[in-house]
Amino acid sequence: MRFHGYFRSSASYRCRIAFGLKHVEYDLRPVHLRRGGGEQNTPDYRQLNPQGLVPALETAGLVLTQSLAIVEWLDERYPEPPLLPADSDQRALVRGFAQAIACDIHPLQNLRVLRFLTSELELDQAQLDRWCQHWIGEGLMACEALIAGNEFDFAFGDAPGLADICLVPQMYSADRFGVDLERMPRLRAVRDRCEALPAFAAAHPSRQPDADA
Amino acid sequence: MRFHGYFRSSASYRCRIAFGLKHVEYDLRPVHLRRGGGEQNTPDYRQLNPQGLVPALETAGLVLTQSLAIVEWLDERYPEPPLLPADSDQRALVRGFAQAIACDIHPLQNLRVLRFLTSELELDQAQLDRWCQHWIGEGLMACEALIAGNEFDFAFGDAPGLADICLVPQMYSADRFGVDLERMPRLRAVRDRCEALPAFAAAHPSRQPDADA
Repeated sequence: MRFHGYFRSSASYRCRIAFGLKHVEYDLRPVHLRRGGGEQNTPDYRQLNPQGLVPALETAGLVLTQSLAIVEWLDERYPEPPLLPADSDQRALVRGFAQAIACDIHPLQNLRVLRFLTSELELDQAQLDRWCQHWIGEGLMACEALIAGNEFDFAFGDAPGLADICLVPQMYSADRFGVDLERMPRLRAVRDRCEALPAFAAAHPSRQPDADA
Repeated sequence: MRFHGYFRSSASYRCRIAFGLKHVEYDLRPVHLRRGGGEQNTPDYRQLNPQGLVPALETAGLVLTQSLAIVEWLDERYPEPPLLPADSDQRALVRGFAQAIACDIHPLQNLRVLRFLTSELELDQAQLDRWCQHWIGEGLMACEALIAGNEFDFAFGDAPGLADICLVPQMYSADRFGVDLERMPRLRAVRDRCEALPAFAAAHPSRQPDADA
């Protein structure tokens, strides 16, 4: 399996955690989003993924895109350990939490959007910081509320799963953008437990071969 | 089942199509996003969905949020007709297409984001139009490429499914924001076939009881 990703991309980070939890090896093809005009914009990469985004997973003549689709595919192909609950109701809650991050937080603060805001709409750094802190802060506070009543070690159970896979990279971004995480004790506790696990630790951006020096 | 939605919300529209395709009845609880400070921001609604977004589905003591999670839950609970392919590879492609819309197009043009851009960051209407047209146009062109090679009646098969459920509301938004759809013949053909089906027609924003007069 060829995995096209970028060390700092939240969506790539999610997939790396899932690969680690499943003990599935992959052949990394780094796509440097900031080098030159961005390697994601080359004709070869656009041929692979017309969105020009990472990650993309090539496997047996198939190209899969979108991190949540890739993680669910991995979970179906390599069932152990499961990343989603067996019960439909619980599965819907986990997917809802994951999508609250993947649909309503992350897309607003990824590189292409921040670039458009600065280069096309000429926002300054203070406005950009306000934008990022607003969406990440508000979004994570909602996530905190979604799992406030759960007393599990992880977001939705006593083993990590899809929700945790989305949470940890988003908390990493929140830190980078200076979001105040003090208000989110439940999320921080889950994040800390995740980061103590080898699969999460090995997936951290700073541990990737393509990480900036 | 109580379905909290708003007639013009893309995410609500997706769920309405899925309900229709499954022939599942629901009790509509309209949440008017533009009335007063927005009914999604009342303490009662925030109690139900801490994100303060529509849709939310209440069923048997459970509150489900996020349209894709709701559609997949419906598909698991009411298996006929299926909205996702049985094969894992095909399912991953369909989910990838759906998420290309739900994660990378729609979140950038929904009401709360447009409001923040105008009221907090003081963008003018021309800048806002440019923002919407850029993300919707670029995003749908990628979707066009993702299914260019498919010769099915619908996005990924000869029956409508999750990909079509996401596509039709996004095309509706694209029209509203003045995006040029001429460049997307495959998407238009799929959209037109969908709109001829009763489940899609009945889910159209203009046909909802909470639609603006």
